[in-house]
Amino acid sequence: MMRRGDDAGYDRSLTMFSPEGRLYQVEYALEAVRRGTLVIALKSKYGATLVTRKKFTKLMDSSTIEKIFQMDEHMGCAIAGLHADSRILVDYARVQCQVHRLTYSEPVRIQTITRKLADIKQQYSQHGGVRPFGSSLLIVGVDPDGMPRITTTSPSGTYWSWRGTAMGRNSDAARETLNKELNDEMSLEELVKLGIKILKESTDEEFEDENLSIATISAEERKFELLKYDRIKAYL
Amino acid sequence: MMRRGDDAGYDRSLTMFSPEGRLYQVEYALEAVRRGTLVIALKSKYGATLVTRKKFTKLMDSSTIEKIFQMDEHMGCAIAGLHADSRILVDYARVQCQVHRLTYSEPVRIQTITRKLADIKQQYSQHGGVRPFGSSLLIVGVDPDGMPRITTTSPSGTYWSWRGTAMGRNSDAARETLNKELNDEMSLEELVKLGIKILKESTDEEFEDENLSIATISAEERKFELLKYDRIKAYL
Amino acid sequence: MMRRGDDAGYDRSLTMFSPEGRLYQVEYALEAVRRGTLVIALKSKYGATLVTRKKFTKLMDSSTIEKIFQMDEHMGCAIAGLHADSRILVDYARVQCQVHRLTYSEPVRIQTITRKLADIKQQYSQHGGVRPFGSSLLIVGVDPDGMPRITTTSPSGTYWSWRGTAMGRNSDAARETLNKELNDEMSLEELVKLGIKILKESTDEEFEDENLSIATISAEERKFELLKYDRIKAYL
Amino acid sequence: MMRRGDDAGYDRSLTMFSPEGRLYQVEYALEAVRRGTLVIALKSKYGATLVTRKKFTKLMDSSTIEKIFQMDEHMGCAIAGLHADSRILVDYARVQCQVHRLTYSEPVRIQTITRKLADIKQQYSQHGGVRPFGSSLLIVGVDPDGMPRITTTSPSGTYWSWRGTAMGRNSDAARETLNKELNDEMSLEELVKLGIKILKESTDEEFEDENLSIATISAEERKFELLKYDRIKAYL
Amino acid sequence: MMRRGDDAGYDRSLTMFSPEGRLYQVEYALEAVRRGTLVIALKSKYGATLVTRKKFTKLMDSSTIEKIFQMDEHMGCAIAGLHADSRILVDYARVQCQVHRLTYSEPVRIQTITRKLADIKQQYSQHGGVRPFGSSLLIVGVDPDGMPRITTTSPSGTYWSWRGTAMGRNSDAARETLNKELNDEMSLEELVKLGIKILKESTDEEFEDENLSIATISAEERKFELLKYDRIKAYL
Amino acid sequence: MMRRGDDAGYDRSLTMFSPEGRLYQVEYALEAVRRGTLVIALKSKYGATLVTRKKFTKLMDSSTIEKIFQMDEHMGCAIAGLHADSRILVDYARVQCQVHRLTYSEPVRIQTITRKLADIKQQYSQHGGVRPFGSSLLIVGVDPDGMPRITTTSPSGTYWSWRGTAMGRNSDAARETLNKELNDEMSLEELVKLGIKILKESTDEEFEDENLSIATISAEERKFELLKYDRIKAYL
Amino acid sequence: MMRRGDDAGYDRSLTMFSPEGRLYQVEYALEAVRRGTLVIALKSKYGATLVTRKKFTKLMDSSTIEKIFQMDEHMGCAIAGLHADSRILVDYARVQCQVHRLTYSEPVRIQTITRKLADIKQQYSQHGGVRPFGSSLLIVGVDPDGMPRITTTSPSGTYWSWRGTAMGRNSDAARETLNKELNDEMSLEELVKLGIKILKESTDEEFEDENLSIATISAEERKFELLKYDRIKAYL
Repeated sequence: MMRRGDDAGYDRSLTMFSPEGRLYQVEYALEAVRRGTLVIALKSKYGATLVTRKKFTKLMDSSTIEKIFQMDEHMGCAIAGLHADSRILVDYARVQCQVHRLTYSEPVRIQTITRKLADIKQQYSQHGGVRPFGSSLLIVGVDPDGMPRITTTSPSGTYWSWRGTAMGRNSDAARETLNKELNDEMSLEELVKLGIKILKESTDEEFEDENLSIATISAEERKFELLKYDRIKAYL
Repeated sequence: MMRRGDDAGYDRSLTMFSPEGRLYQVEYALEAVRRGTLVIALKSKYGATLVTRKKFTKLMDSSTIEKIFQMDEHMGCAIAGLHADSRILVDYARVQCQVHRLTYSEPVRIQTITRKLADIKQQYSQHGGVRPFGSSLLIVGVDPDGMPRITTTSPSGTYWSWRGTAMGRNSDAARETLNKELNDEMSLEELVKLGIKILKESTDEEFEDENLSIATISAEERKFELLKYDRIKAYL
Repeated sequence: MMRRGDDAGYDRSLTMFSPEGRLYQVEYALEAVRRGTLVIALKSKYGATLVTRKKFTKLMDSSTIEKIFQMDEHMGCAIAGLHADSRILVDYARVQCQVHRLTYSEPVRIQTITRKLADIKQQYSQHGGVRPFGSSLLIVGVDPDGMPRITTTSPSGTYWSWRGTAMGRNSDAARETLNKELNDEMSLEELVKLGIKILKESTDEEFEDENLSIATISAEERKFELLKYDRIKAYL
Repeated sequence: MMRRGDDAGYDRSLTMFSPEGRLYQVEYALEAVRRGTLVIALKSKYGATLVTRKKFTKLMDSSTIEKIFQMDEHMGCAIAGLHADSRILVDYARVQCQVHRLTYSEPVRIQTITRKLADIKQQYSQHGGVRPFGSSLLIVGVDPDGMPRITTTSPSGTYWSWRGTAMGRNSDAARETLNKELNDEMSLEELVKLGIKILKESTDEEFEDENLSIATISAEERKFELLKYDRIKAYL
Repeated sequence: MMRRGDDAGYDRSLTMFSPEGRLYQVEYALEAVRRGTLVIALKSKYGATLVTRKKFTKLMDSSTIEKIFQMDEHMGCAIAGLHADSRILVDYARVQCQVHRLTYSEPVRIQTITRKLADIKQQYSQHGGVRPFGSSLLIVGVDPDGMPRITTTSPSGTYWSWRGTAMGRNSDAARETLNKELNDEMSLEELVKLGIKILKESTDEEFEDENLSIATISAEERKFELLKYDRIKAYL
Repeated sequence: MMRRGDDAGYDRSLTMFSPEGRLYQVEYALEAVRRGTLVIALKSKYGATLVTRKKFTKLMDSSTIEKIFQMDEHMGCAIAGLHADSRILVDYARVQCQVHRLTYSEPVRIQTITRKLADIKQQYSQHGGVRPFGSSLLIVGVDPDGMPRITTTSPSGTYWSWRGTAMGRNSDAARETLNKELNDEMSLEELVKLGIKILKESTDEEFEDENLSIATISAEERKFELLKYDRIKAYL
Repeated sequence: MMRRGDDAGYDRSLTMFSPEGRLYQVEYALEAVRRGTLVIALKSKYGATLVTRKKFTKLMDSSTIEKIFQMDEHMGCAIAGLHADSRILVDYARVQCQVHRLTYSEPVRIQTITRKLADIKQQYSQHGGVRPFGSSLLIVGVDPDGMPRITTTSPSGTYWSWRGTAMGRNSDAARETLNKELNDEMSLEELVKLGIKILKESTDEEFEDENLSIATISAEERKFELLKYDRIKAYL
């Protein structure tokens, strides 16, 4: 009702610089990411895992509500931020994965897909007539060289590689614990357990184990797998 | 007359982020949905139903006034929000259903159509020169695998799957009752009765039974059917 | 001179949502309709009629000043709102009627044309670079199934079907009387007389019988006819 | 110098609705017409005439300064409002007249050309990137059926037919006299004399007879003619 | 530095109407013309002349600094307003003159070129994405019928024909003298002398005779000629 | 930080007129020129020279830092204003020089290139979606007729020819001295010496002789030459 | 939250001039560069080096985090400013390097690539619908003539050549030391050591030697090489 005061200034037609050299629209988009559900990614030399929780009410059909998406056989991602924006990006990445397979007859490298996503995002932060994507992706996979990889892309089009990281609400706390406890020799099982532990410690609200959403990929098998609840139960 | 004060701020040419990472235009569009007539969807393993009421005066030709639309033989939807915006989306979905049938010689899955609708909506929330759709759709159908489905799409382009849900005025109260009383073993008849009960409890204004608008689809027959009043009377 | 105060806020380049989920430009366009001359449409199973009055000074050439337009042999409309906007829409509808006849060798259904008009209007309310149409149409005709129909389209792109309705100044009062006195068994003559009575009761200013503008269509003959004054006199 | 105050509000990129359903840009354009020189058109069954005066200083080459333009053999117009805008419209009409002659081998009807002009004007009042035409045309001619016609088009795209009318400064007073004294049995000579009388009565400033600009067309001969001064003198 | 106050209001993307029906951008453009150097044009039945003065410092290469441009053999113009805008228009006119010669094998009429220039200017005053031309042209020539002509075009796209006129600073005073002293029987020499006299009387600042810039065209020879200084000296 | 106050008014999408008929964006662009390093051009009948100084720190690679650019064998220029804008214009001119040579097998005239540059600049001052060029060019060359020429182009698209001129900081003082001391009989050596003298007198900050940047062209040889430092030393 | 105050003024659709002739958007973009990590480039006749440090947390996968990029065999660059913007530019440059090799069968000159990058940047500072690049590049390489080169491009599209320079936080201090200690006779080893020394002195925060990121190219071998940590250790 009394909105005029605070939305008069940024509701413009192009993302531009502030006097401090910052792109407010991009920072506001990042805010959409920061307020999302916590997502954790960890890896060791034996594999990688994504750990998060699905937020849904009893009335929702939980089987179709996901924060984690498979992108190709050897790669998937968790999304943070606006669900619809993220979906557009995941769909784009899926097509690019297949294009790569058809063109080069081999699975695409994690960083190649990450860059393609980051390039799209950069364009939406520099050109008029569009707003930036309100979405960060946390991509996990195993490269053709057998090395597990974790990458992230932000609304600005920047991307980074990680041993382990977290996004969304309370991600700072989660990253601190990761920093202390993650090491490259952990088994995939230990990674998942650590992920669950950190997720539970860093989440303000209570949540049921059924809400856990976990994906794993082992360096050996190179199959990204979104775990069924019975598999998750085994880790608890 | 004295409008200037409150519409100066959001009447801009592009949907962009607020400092809190929110898209006001999308939230305002959602407000158009929230103020609409209550619509309820419920399903069990035996089928699904849409229950709402038509709002019309005596002078209207009630036979052509609908809140529920068939989209394909096995699928339909109720609309919430701006009537004209919703109609454009329903028409789009109907064409996509037929395109799918012609291309693959089988009925389209509920989620496939839901995503197509959600993708269009996301685009209208990110690109300049258009406003978001002021419409949510509550889609009900039976998938080729014989499973009843309920999905919803919001103005942001997000979509969800449900066991049962409600939209529009007083939908929170309606969902609470749904949550308590809906179970997967109810017959289609029980679903319709529960829907009518909740609709009546959650609506502020009085309304005649003639205003009820109900559609059903059974898991077995897979025919979406908008009920004639004599069929509705049987449930009362 | 002192206009700045009140037109600074809505003179923008795109129709967008207010925080209450409303489209002001569309509502302002509707205001143009509300301030127009009163138009009344009534139907029974024997036919339908449009009753309004032409507003003109003595100096005008009354034979070319109309508020009622024939759209096809079996269909016509009265316009409410901006004359020029309405004319563009009527012309569009006339072409669509002929396209339908040429394509399917049969007269188009009233609702089909109504939807086509409503779709155009919806587009002008969602896309940038245009303003909504400041016009509502009150369409009257007889469908190929022999049923008289009355439909209306609003600037938002919404359309409705009616037994009888009114538009423009004092249309609420007119609808109230319609509601009480209209029934489906009235002869076409009774409809016209009721229409004239309501028009006279609901109009603030005095007006001469010569100013009456009346069109009729009977369910049997299916010819939309704009009545000459000698025919009108017979009803007085 | 201190203009900012009053032009901040309407100097926008698109003509849109005010809360009262009015199109300010169109009304402002009409203001340009209202402030123009008075133009009078009259007709009877024997013909029609345009009467106005040319405003020019001694230094101007009066033979090339006109407010009245021939559009086709059987039709011409007087312009009110911005001279340059009017010229564009007259040129457009002239081309359309010839296109009609070439296509149908007969002179175009007055109303047909009037509508084409009105349609162009409506588009300039609804689409972005242009301003409305600041011009009204007063068109006079004799139709193929031998009937003299007078039509006017306004910046909004509305058009009207008249027995006689006036535009520009003091046109209300002029129309009042017309209303009283014009009748359909007047000879062309009487029409011209009445026109001159009304023009002189309704004009604030003195002006010389040499400044009179008069065109006539008789129902019989169907030739639009801009009178030379010796012909005009005969009427004084 | 403190500019904000006065340029906030008119720095918009489209020329539109003020409530008084005026086009401010066009009037501001005209202001650029009004502040230019005084230019005088005069004609009699024996020919026409343009008289102005070049404003330059000692360091300028006077031979290439002109306010008067030849457009075709039988026609030329003086410019008032923005030099760069004027040049674009002169170039356009020169091309059109040649196009006419090639198409019709005869010199173009003065009014034909004047209209083409006026049409371009009108478009720049009605369409978005451009500003009006800040330039008026004072065109002088002899028509194929042997008649000398003077025309002017303004930023609005209006044009006028003249026996004699003036533009720029103090043009009102200059026109008053012209009005009194110009007559159609003057020889070309008398015209030039009158022009020089008026220019000197109406100019505030002193200037040297070397700064005079004069062009003549005689009705007989039909050659537009920019006079060398020795020719000018003869008139002093 | 507190920028809002002073940049709110001119940061618009199109260069338009102020009420005084001025184009602020063009004047602001000119300000960028006025603040640049002083550049001096002089000519006599024996040749022409450009004298300026390069501003660089010890860390810069002075051989690649230039304020003077060769455009063709017989022509070059010094730039004043934004370096990047100027470079785009110089590149454009270089291509046009070659196009001319290829088309006509002779070197282009100085004024022809100057006009082409001025035309581009005019367009950037009248059309939307671009800002004016923040650059003036000081062009020096010898025409095919053996005459040395100096021309300048401003951000507005105006151009002038000169015997000698100066641009940038303190150019007024420099022009005053030029006015007094330049004459058409000076040898090329005298021109260069005068240029150096004026540059040194008119520059506030001290600078080393190594920073001098000088180009010459003699009327006889017609080769534009950017002088190496040993050649410059000879003049000191 | 209270952002409106300071971002209302510069969030516009086009980079334009301020009254002082400055382009704020370009200056704001430069601010993004100034706040970046310090980057140092040095050269002597024996080669050139880039010295900076990678900023990353323990959780990052340091092998994929770079501030220095190879552009071609004989050339690379360090980036300062927005990471995503810089990446787009580096990719563009890489393609241009290969295009040059394919077209001319020789490595491209450093300045040629630098200009191509600067031209792109200039366009993004003058045309509407885009914002300037928030990135400066520090390019280092050895030209086909065997000369090491250092160039920089700024957001405005200006470029410079250097013997040595620094960008980012505290670059002024770094340049001062460079100015004193750099000379053209230093060996590549001495250059690297000087670079490391200056980087350490000029950086506020402590950092580990592992964070150093160093690239070298020798005049003789002409291979741009990003040093592995064991090579870097040798210099410490």
